[in-house]
Amino acid sequence: MGIKTDKLERFRVLFSEKSLVNCASIEAYVLPSTDAHQSEYISEHDFRVKFLSGFSGSNAFTIITKSDALLWTDGRYFVQADEQLEDGWKLMKQGLPESTDPVDWLVENFPANTNVGFDPQLFGYAAGVSLVEKLKKVRINAICSEGNLVDRVWQDRPAASDAPVLTLSLEECGELSSDKIKRVRDSLQKKKCDSIVFTALDDIAWLLNIRGADISFNPVAFAVLVVTLDEVALFIDQKKVSDMWIPDVTNYFLGSLINKDNAYVAMSPVQPMKGVKNAVELQGMRNCHIRDGAAHVQFLVWLKKNIDAGKAVSELEAADYFEKLRSQREKFVSLSFDTISAVDTHSSLPHYKPGPDSGKRVIVKDSVYLVDSGGQYRDGTTDVTRTLCAKDHPDPDFKKMFTLVLKGHIDTAMLKFPSGINGIRIDVIARKCLWDDGYDFGHGVGHGVGHFLNVHEGPAGIAYRTYKDEGKIMKGYILTIEPGYYDPSRWGIRIENCYEVVEAKNLKSGAANYLTFSPLTFVPIQKNLIERSLLTPEEVSWLNVYHADCLEKVGPYLLAHNMDEEHEWLKEACTPL
Amino acid sequence: MGIKTDKLERFRVLFSEKSLVNCASIEAYVLPSTDAHQSEYISEHDFRVKFLSGFSGSNAFTIITKSDALLWTDGRYFVQADEQLEDGWKLMKQGLPESTDPVDWLVENFPANTNVGFDPQLFGYAAGVSLVEKLKKVRINAICSEGNLVDRVWQDRPAASDAPVLTLSLEECGELSSDKIKRVRDSLQKKKCDSIVFTALDDIAWLLNIRGADISFNPVAFAVLVVTLDEVALFIDQKKVSDMWIPDVTNYFLGSLINKDNAYVAMSPVQPMKGVKNAVELQGMRNCHIRDGAAHVQFLVWLKKNIDAGKAVSELEAADYFEKLRSQREKFVSLSFDTISAVDTHSSLPHYKPGPDSGKRVIVKDSVYLVDSGGQYRDGTTDVTRTLCAKDHPDPDFKKMFTLVLKGHIDTAMLKFPSGINGIRIDVIARKCLWDDGYDFGHGVGHGVGHFLNVHEGPAGIAYRTYKDEGKIMKGYILTIEPGYYDPSRWGIRIENCYEVVEAKNLKSGAANYLTFSPLTFVPIQKNLIERSLLTPEEVSWLNVYHADCLEKVGPYLLAHNMDEEHEWLKEACTPL
Repeated sequence: MGIKTDKLERFRVLFSEKSLVNCASIEAYVLPSTDAHQSEYISEHDFRVKFLSGFSGSNAFTIITKSDALLWTDGRYFVQADEQLEDGWKLMKQGLPESTDPVDWLVENFPANTNVGFDPQLFGYAAGVSLVEKLKKVRINAICSEGNLVDRVWQDRPAASDAPVLTLSLEECGELSSDKIKRVRDSLQKKKCDSIVFTALDDIAWLLNIRGADISFNPVAFAVLVVTLDEVALFIDQKKVSDMWIPDVTNYFLGSLINKDNAYVAMSPVQPMKGVKNAVELQGMRNCHIRDGAAHVQFLVWLKKNIDAGKAVSELEAADYFEKLRSQREKFVSLSFDTISAVDTHSSLPHYKPGPDSGKRVIVKDSVYLVDSGGQYRDGTTDVTRTLCAKDHPDPDFKKMFTLVLKGHIDTAMLKFPSGINGIRIDVIARKCLWDDGYDFGHGVGHGVGHFLNVHEGPAGIAYRTYKDEGKIMKGYILTIEPGYYDPSRWGIRIENCYEVVEAKNLKSGAANYLTFSPLTFVPIQKNLIERSLLTPEEVSWLNVYHADCLEKVGPYLLAHNMDEEHEWLKEACTPL
Repeated sequence: MGIKTDKLERFRVLFSEKSLVNCASIEAYVLPSTDAHQSEYISEHDFRVKFLSGFSGSNAFTIITKSDALLWTDGRYFVQADEQLEDGWKLMKQGLPESTDPVDWLVENFPANTNVGFDPQLFGYAAGVSLVEKLKKVRINAICSEGNLVDRVWQDRPAASDAPVLTLSLEECGELSSDKIKRVRDSLQKKKCDSIVFTALDDIAWLLNIRGADISFNPVAFAVLVVTLDEVALFIDQKKVSDMWIPDVTNYFLGSLINKDNAYVAMSPVQPMKGVKNAVELQGMRNCHIRDGAAHVQFLVWLKKNIDAGKAVSELEAADYFEKLRSQREKFVSLSFDTISAVDTHSSLPHYKPGPDSGKRVIVKDSVYLVDSGGQYRDGTTDVTRTLCAKDHPDPDFKKMFTLVLKGHIDTAMLKFPSGINGIRIDVIARKCLWDDGYDFGHGVGHGVGHFLNVHEGPAGIAYRTYKDEGKIMKGYILTIEPGYYDPSRWGIRIENCYEVVEAKNLKSGAANYLTFSPLTFVPIQKNLIERSLLTPEEVSWLNVYHADCLEKVGPYLLAHNMDEEHEWLKEACTPL
């Protein structure tokens, strides 16, 4: 049973406030966890689902009826949702064969002539049309509420951000905004459109070579951008900018742009453009990963010393100290997401975040400790997970699962595949050895990473849910590989690196259109957790080359920054298996 | 350059026949290769694309403009289309990263206010809506022609079939039609629909436990079926049936059923019902594969004797003799598709069919010979491909590619995977070792197979193009595994079996929701074509168990039917590798 509050009760009273719901009464309210830009990670100001339900995961879709409150989320969050959901909420699991889609749930559970309310700002255009149409077929009316109903009962709502916007120089971003806009206009003309409206914040940031700080960890600014064949109009809070042209903002204008008959609804053409990193962006990503790797090595050495000295470090202390180490590196801006610093059962929650209480759990010699963290640097973005255990003789069970996860990671990293295939096609490579024994993990294998932008970036990823044609993997993309395994009663394991998608050369067939992965992250993987007999010779060889590269890339940086002790540790960590 | 005819010229004259195109003039005509039931394989009566273009592949989509004639097809048919397309036609390749969808091609190549004609009977409802809507966005008018324009220029059009319909007994099909209809009505009520219209011919055949002979190899009858909550109406040519109730057929009725506002457009609920074979169907499938395997062994022995005797057998002779052997087995009805009997370069065309001339090519000692064939039996359907070579020392190159294809086959057959995943997620397993060297094949890994029904059956398959949520693989499905490799200048390789999808038992995790494949096809794979050093010990072990099973299942049948010579051959073919 979760925490008891009267929030749902107060919320449901609004269901019959005619002026808010534009009808006599609604029977349910549909509330996805996003903002008016369909962001994955949102500001606290927009985190309505967390306020109403207690659940803080990044993926949630809720339906509140007069009697029920249902929250849909995926396998990364099942355990966390069970723990966080307040009284009156029910978890609906996504991604299982028996799962019901929220809209289908409405179709199946409500009679004709029911009114269902929603906030149209929280739906992408295609998703909104689909919601309204599907309900219409069974005579359920989808009704736009006046503003968002949650805001009416949200006392102590955090204020909206007014952080300033910064501009990247050509040396930092590699392509002028005017050239990027030109490429957008070429796409427009090809699709016979006159204009395009951007609400995705990282698309806007990339196009204009600007960065903001309106959402934690994601260096973007709230804005709407309209590009026509001969004009560019940015709608943004005047406080955020100094010397930009700000036209009048009229909702009518935006509204008419997405009038149904005039709209060509498709993926933003900017997504694949932004996905393919240019030479400056790639070099920046490589450089920042060396500094980030050095901070990571510092952290691992510090942690080992504490454990060896019998000094218990808490999850929160570890996360804070790691942040401090990162922040001392050149060009550091912020973390790229909340550090997941998780001991034992906490590590089995893929997106665990140490809370004020839970974060007091300490890391000791026998702990399984998982740390998933990353930084935003002026020249790039990092994201890395390592799972550690200082025990002299780690459990054979743990070693076996650690090795199966590692095999999946290495097999994916070694894969050669034709350019332009969808990531869903290679997701199984990281799962195959787990499936052999009936194990699996409830999240994707990898996601795109932005250049000093969102740590989760479209359009491509390696996941089982991306059925879209648009998620083609192209040369120059940055993807993570991060298989895992989670046993809620004991511990979780995840091993994550960032990779550059590069050409696969010298193939026997002579084919020139094949791609493979080249590591960006250089942090050693703890060798005594590996059950060597489970690795193939090819997998062992990949690991040894990877560790040699770690030493070659990060070693000189450590020496140049007087981290001799860290260099010694790294040398030992990088010897062949 | 292909054959020159005046067909396109005569066809284009109709573009300005007002009474046919319902406007002053059309600029283009869109013609998919299907029939009014969206069948994959169609009757000669409906094979308009073949008449107009010369191309006889099962997948084609064409657009004929005043100056161009374009035909889209996939990798299975690139070489065949190059050879067959008549003068004036251009091949548009599907499934490559740079491919353009036909509708996008129209959008990009025609100005606003263009009229484009199409035959609404040749589009599924969702596809038709999508065509009209996409063109409307760029102000292109999609206009229904009066009947199909091709029919106006088609002299010597083959007549429509009036083959009779047969009914399966409960002992043969395992479930009463009335019980199946009840399950359909349960689905209807769940989705709040009053009625459903079936045009897919195998859905209708399965639901009513009937079979027909209107399309070669696919034992279905042309019909339309409407099921309401309390009535069942079958629309079928009276000549085909003796004692069934035939209501008046009115197009208006059908039209109003698919009126946009009343339509719930989704996959037919019958597809997953039909996919999961019941105990009677499964037993029938197992039984007919023993008989089919025996005929296959007879064929291989006959072929070997001819080759050994220096007697050249042509592709056509081989196909005919194989059909004769199958037709002597109990419960044989017909082939399940045109036998692919292909020597050397012909075998590199995945869907090659020996023609009156091409089929004269002979199978000799040095030939690579690929035979892909199957039968319709009263108790089930088979589909099997073997690639053979009688050479004393097969080329190392050929052995290497044969072994890579075999590895992909075995790795897929050994896979354990969670119930309900989409086939696209496991397609890569059969390609991985090919990709390592930059090789691939241009077709899916496997398709569903019906029970005495279509040899290609939905909803699931193992393919890279199936992005639909509906294609979940469930226990009781029948799937083929058939990776290949094709070198147009030398030869092609394909190794295909049918498999039952069964539970994977005794997993270390204790999970009960895992599936794997159990072979239905029992025909040995030629051992001296295998480069053993490329196989893992697990792969060798799978093959040895498979061959032992071939002998155990088919051997007794051979002995019981006095095929002692064949039994001797099988014993030798099934010794461990």
